[in-house]
Amino acid sequence: MKVLILGGDGYLGWPTAMYFSNLGYEVMVVDNFAKRRWELEEGIEPLLSIPTLHRRIARWKEVTGKNIELKVGDLCNHRFVYTLLDAYKPDAIIHYGEQPSAPYSMQSRATAVYTQYNNVVGNLNLMFAIQHACPNSHLVKLGTMGEYGTPNIDIEEGWITIDHNGRTDTMMYPKKPHSFYHLSKVHDSNNIEFACRIWGMRATDLNQGVVYGIETDETILDDELRTSFHYDDVFGTVLNRFLVQASVDVPLTVYGSGMQTRGALNIMDTLNCVRISVENPAEKGEFKIFNQFTEQFSVNDFAGKVVSAGERRGLNVKVSNLENPRVEQEDHYYNAKHSKLVDLGLEPHLLTNELLDNMLDTVCKNNSRVDKNVFNPRVKWTAGKE
Amino acid sequence: MKVLILGGDGYLGWPTAMYFSNLGYEVMVVDNFAKRRWELEEGIEPLLSIPTLHRRIARWKEVTGKNIELKVGDLCNHRFVYTLLDAYKPDAIIHYGEQPSAPYSMQSRATAVYTQYNNVVGNLNLMFAIQHACPNSHLVKLGTMGEYGTPNIDIEEGWITIDHNGRTDTMMYPKKPHSFYHLSKVHDSNNIEFACRIWGMRATDLNQGVVYGIETDETILDDELRTSFHYDDVFGTVLNRFLVQASVDVPLTVYGSGMQTRGALNIMDTLNCVRISVENPAEKGEFKIFNQFTEQFSVNDFAGKVVSAGERRGLNVKVSNLENPRVEQEDHYYNAKHSKLVDLGLEPHLLTNELLDNMLDTVCKNNSRVDKNVFNPRVKWTAGKE
Repeated sequence: MKVLILGGDGYLGWPTAMYFSNLGYEVMVVDNFAKRRWELEEGIEPLLSIPTLHRRIARWKEVTGKNIELKVGDLCNHRFVYTLLDAYKPDAIIHYGEQPSAPYSMQSRATAVYTQYNNVVGNLNLMFAIQHACPNSHLVKLGTMGEYGTPNIDIEEGWITIDHNGRTDTMMYPKKPHSFYHLSKVHDSNNIEFACRIWGMRATDLNQGVVYGIETDETILDDELRTSFHYDDVFGTVLNRFLVQASVDVPLTVYGSGMQTRGALNIMDTLNCVRISVENPAEKGEFKIFNQFTEQFSVNDFAGKVVSAGERRGLNVKVSNLENPRVEQEDHYYNAKHSKLVDLGLEPHLLTNELLDNMLDTVCKNNSRVDKNVFNPRVKWTAGKE
Repeated sequence: MKVLILGGDGYLGWPTAMYFSNLGYEVMVVDNFAKRRWELEEGIEPLLSIPTLHRRIARWKEVTGKNIELKVGDLCNHRFVYTLLDAYKPDAIIHYGEQPSAPYSMQSRATAVYTQYNNVVGNLNLMFAIQHACPNSHLVKLGTMGEYGTPNIDIEEGWITIDHNGRTDTMMYPKKPHSFYHLSKVHDSNNIEFACRIWGMRATDLNQGVVYGIETDETILDDELRTSFHYDDVFGTVLNRFLVQASVDVPLTVYGSGMQTRGALNIMDTLNCVRISVENPAEKGEFKIFNQFTEQFSVNDFAGKVVSAGERRGLNVKVSNLENPRVEQEDHYYNAKHSKLVDLGLEPHLLTNELLDNMLDTVCKNNSRVDKNVFNPRVKWTAGKE
């Protein structure tokens, strides 16, 4: 079975490629290395230097004997996408290939427009190319829990049955996204739902929570197989950033009250969830939606856990409540359903003290390159007004 | 009070400009004439030839003594938009400046991507430019009833209060759009809602029904002040096309069963609704949504009315039920609310026999240029699969 992984150079794309390769799938990865350029724009680097994708693929072959194919190209170039799918005709396409940062999108008009252009047009090109080359391929699209925002009712998994004035319909769950980035994912979801409806496309949309973690069963096989781990304000996710801050004696940067609650999951579970999605493809015309996270935490919960892990290690970790650079609800109801992937067999790696201690240990051993200047939030949500 | 009208060369933009000018507003229009190029691409022309916008503005001055200012430029060019708003600082911005045809968007990957790029990026540039230059300006954005699709529950005016698992929230009404064009309007609405929420933008979204009509109080002042009336399969709306078909003895092209039901309104009421929206601006941070139509009809209702109008004129009008080129529900529930504009004073021009007879009379007197080759639908909704 052939799997195509778009965004194969990224934090999640590369571990996904090795994971599927190890499972015996035929794997091709695609990247245009735009993310590496965005890092240069922001002046940030991952915790550890990351070899080129070419080198990592070669190392994977040396270590495991397994092949991962690579094509370099941009999803916004439709000729590239058509040629790619005409030649490879994958059974499943795992689409991570988008600009993934909310703060990046909120910096300016230019980055907001670029994010929506890049993500929406790349995804449209992909949808049309699938229809053209391999209409039975199953699109597994990475979305985000941040598409839902913080509604005052339970968050369902993508669809909601609404009783209204004595009638009933099952409709797309109304979304209230947190940023122009999150909006780009909402636009994608709406476009894909339409394609399933009118063309009979098969698609699964994964509304993923905040991912944490630095290692998978495959990244630990060799130093050169590591994945890109960010701790900065633009590309770093919250728990990853807190762990790095703890390791270099910098107070944890909690935005506002810290009562903001989100779903979260271990990077190992990202791989499991994507595998489960590929193994349980949508039917023709079906638009499946899963909420892909395992536990929900407030920012203060994360901070508290890192303070405790620090104590166990003999570190005196402090917390700094910063003025919130984002415009978001801080005190809100949050109850997001996430049972569908568990029903299909997901066995979550929960955020235990042991796991936290291991992550902090790994970060502390690898913190020699940490740049303390990139922790504080530089992007305000009101930037468009200024 | 200064009003900026984007898309001022169009079927609705030009009559809106004259209407506001006549009411005493200071009016500036903007266009990039993209629509005239799309007409050339499709090989179609309006029923009557339309003078250049420059000539129509000059004629307006000759006939009424009133000025309409013109700037030529593209909303996708953000420098143009920033310069425009920095200089003019309008109190209200009426945004018709988008690719307005569902069939146009469904022709191919290229037109689908172009439609979403053009509409979404143009609107984003406008949102940022408003924040930069005139954050108190009121954006009046034209959307469409086709964003809602045909849900099995009543269609509310943009927002719906949902009771779910014992809790309640008022959320954006879930949409199920009919085409990549309609999706572009949904993307716009979502982007604008976010801007109201985080920046305090003021916006009114008008989900407009199918517009019919050829004349307004201003277009009839002079032949050169007429507006662009389309009857073809790509840019012609259904009743307008049926009237022209009746006038040249061509059977009315009903798609499928003809039971598809939509909201509709007279072009005169478009002007009234937009005026009411401008006169009742959204508050800072408010995202107002109105359903802008006056009556709902099935395609068969429209066909029947044109057959009857033909009979009254001595024409033997036939109906041809074509295979539906669109993928859409033909037999569906449809009950769309539309009371908010009426509550604010709209007095609808209903689709009476007298009005139909007048429209048919006008069309019959002006049908010498009709091209019978552009009536039949050339664009299939499944084109992306072929």
